[in-house]
Amino acid sequence: MGKVLVLFHSNTGNTRKMGEQVAAGAAEVPGTEVRVRSIDDANREDLAWCDGVALGGATNLGSMPWQLKKWWDSLPDEVWQSLDGKLGCAFSSSGGWGGGTELACLEMLIVLMNHGLVVFGVTDYVGKKHTLHYGAVQAGEPRTENEIASCRRLGQRMAEWIAVFVDGRKDLHPIARGYPRGSQH
Amino acid sequence: MGKVLVLFHSNTGNTRKMGEQVAAGAAEVPGTEVRVRSIDDANREDLAWCDGVALGGATNLGSMPWQLKKWWDSLPDEVWQSLDGKLGCAFSSSGGWGGGTELACLEMLIVLMNHGLVVFGVTDYVGKKHTLHYGAVQAGEPRTENEIASCRRLGQRMAEWIAVFVDGRKDLHPIARGYPRGSQH
Amino acid sequence: MGKVLVLFHSNTGNTRKMGEQVAAGAAEVPGTEVRVRSIDDANREDLAWCDGVALGGATNLGSMPWQLKKWWDSLPDEVWQSLDGKLGCAFSSSGGWGGGTELACLEMLIVLMNHGLVVFGVTDYVGKKHTLHYGAVQAGEPRTENEIASCRRLGQRMAEWIAVFVDGRKDLHPIARGYPRGSQH
Amino acid sequence: MGKVLVLFHSNTGNTRKMGEQVAAGAAEVPGTEVRVRSIDDANREDLAWCDGVALGGATNLGSMPWQLKKWWDSLPDEVWQSLDGKLGCAFSSSGGWGGGTELACLEMLIVLMNHGLVVFGVTDYVGKKHTLHYGAVQAGEPRTENEIASCRRLGQRMAEWIAVFVDGRKDLHPIARGYPRGSQH
Repeated sequence: MGKVLVLFHSNTGNTRKMGEQVAAGAAEVPGTEVRVRSIDDANREDLAWCDGVALGGATNLGSMPWQLKKWWDSLPDEVWQSLDGKLGCAFSSSGGWGGGTELACLEMLIVLMNHGLVVFGVTDYVGKKHTLHYGAVQAGEPRTENEIASCRRLGQRMAEWIAVFVDGRKDLHPIARGYPRGSQH
Repeated sequence: MGKVLVLFHSNTGNTRKMGEQVAAGAAEVPGTEVRVRSIDDANREDLAWCDGVALGGATNLGSMPWQLKKWWDSLPDEVWQSLDGKLGCAFSSSGGWGGGTELACLEMLIVLMNHGLVVFGVTDYVGKKHTLHYGAVQAGEPRTENEIASCRRLGQRMAEWIAVFVDGRKDLHPIARGYPRGSQH
Repeated sequence: MGKVLVLFHSNTGNTRKMGEQVAAGAAEVPGTEVRVRSIDDANREDLAWCDGVALGGATNLGSMPWQLKKWWDSLPDEVWQSLDGKLGCAFSSSGGWGGGTELACLEMLIVLMNHGLVVFGVTDYVGKKHTLHYGAVQAGEPRTENEIASCRRLGQRMAEWIAVFVDGRKDLHPIARGYPRGSQH
Repeated sequence: MGKVLVLFHSNTGNTRKMGEQVAAGAAEVPGTEVRVRSIDDANREDLAWCDGVALGGATNLGSMPWQLKKWWDSLPDEVWQSLDGKLGCAFSSSGGWGGGTELACLEMLIVLMNHGLVVFGVTDYVGKKHTLHYGAVQAGEPRTENEIASCRRLGQRMAEWIAVFVDGRKDLHPIARGYPRGSQH
């Protein structure tokens, strides 16, 4: 069983809604177990349990909210170097397009890489002019079909990589599965 | 006279269109002279001439096109450290939202900072859920009112900073001018 | 009088020491007033007072410490868009070379840009193979001549840009001053 | 057999020397085959062949050299989305500490992520105050014991992740192997 942790901080509820869609996408991949955890409830057991972390937070000043950073900064020393080789990805919502979501995702990926996670974006286009190359991003809450699809695809890809890398299910590789990958047009 | 160089590489014409809007925005500020130059025509004289560079390129693989990087990498050694203190900003168009425009702008700002330019984004929202905090970004060509406004505002801000910093026109400071700065709502 | 705010968070004292050197460098530029403030003591009056912010924090997981982010995230709404056009730069200390100092500086610059500050790095080499292109960086506390010089040069450049841009002292432009700019060799 | 491609551009020979050390590190992991290729010789067959790409280039203006970007920008369209799920990492050499190596590595990771690769840094410290959290970095050519060790460790980690993820060799996981991971002290 692949184990996906969707870990997030949400003030307004937008990031929580994104996280629920990420979780739903992950659950579509056979043999995947998912935990959705706010940082208020998550602990290091959740990190130890999972094969991969989908990390989400609002875009605050072009980077993650301090509460989310505090959660990571406050982990006990012995956690560091215990997470090597888990999978990682990111999602974020900002006040507007051009407002820093990609930069906030990048910062989350940097934190995950620092902990030894192997991180990814998604090549697929989920609709016309909408992709998630460095994580799922949007302005406000997930509302449009494309926005919802980008969250789901992120979770799905996470579950697929875990299936392929951890459980040896090469049949679940995105290329092997052969579903529509989309294009920018 | 404030001197703005809009410097770009464009394959499809989208970035050129963005650049023309950036130039139009700069020209709205009294006492501003603007040059719009493709890298095919620009040379180091243009760099020496200007007080600020608005740099634009498509988002290719999450960063600037190799042609644009080549232009900068190929400048003679003596140009480096001759541009200190000029202003800099960036604009980029990608195949889709979430496709890396903010990261491409960031890379352009990094190149400009390496040359000693002081770089900026824009706090203003130019419409509902549309801003340009790290440069003007969009998917495809500038089409919507918001997209066009974000290019114009970038150029305008460039010209304003030059007026304020280089020509001592404190009356042209964005805060002094008091126009609507917008919000994400 | 140019006004420089050196704003930092420091747990171990390393970043504080860097900040003191940054302040000393700024004070070398004629007509510069400097405040050195830990985030424990700094408030929005300090931000309103200054012409530029040199922002420093340890490199924690490749980005700034949560305490420093909290300080920025917790500013009242009305501060945002009141700082446009002030100068900004960054400094950081990590546990080791290759440990993320440049990325932490980049994140700090992103936060400053979000607030409308115009940000800069420094082209100068302060010694053999030691520069500060995106902020002053080091492993541990400032110990070597190069490390101390990089902090000082950062503060000096901040004060110079303020003198040039805010006070119209074009004679204090780094190029006009003509001091050794160094090279990588 | 795990297959590692060390792909680089080198003008001065420094990056080539780094690449040779990366390759040597990869070869230390049982069952690993390594190709070391300059972009002058590499082609898309090399990309198709490998399980992971260690990408290296000098730090030019805080990002990768235009020649390296050109190589990636010029790949035929059908390569894109054919590399999903391969491993990726980066290495870079700059003219000086603080000169942008981490930013150049970050840009290389962004390009690799755009192509669907899962990318990683290394948590290990390879000596006092020397690590490679976002790729192997250095000023000039690999000269000191730490610098050489950081290149080797990068290649070793790449080969380990391939062994674990692609070939199911869980005994080769860094944590299972139990060698010294080092600390910053």
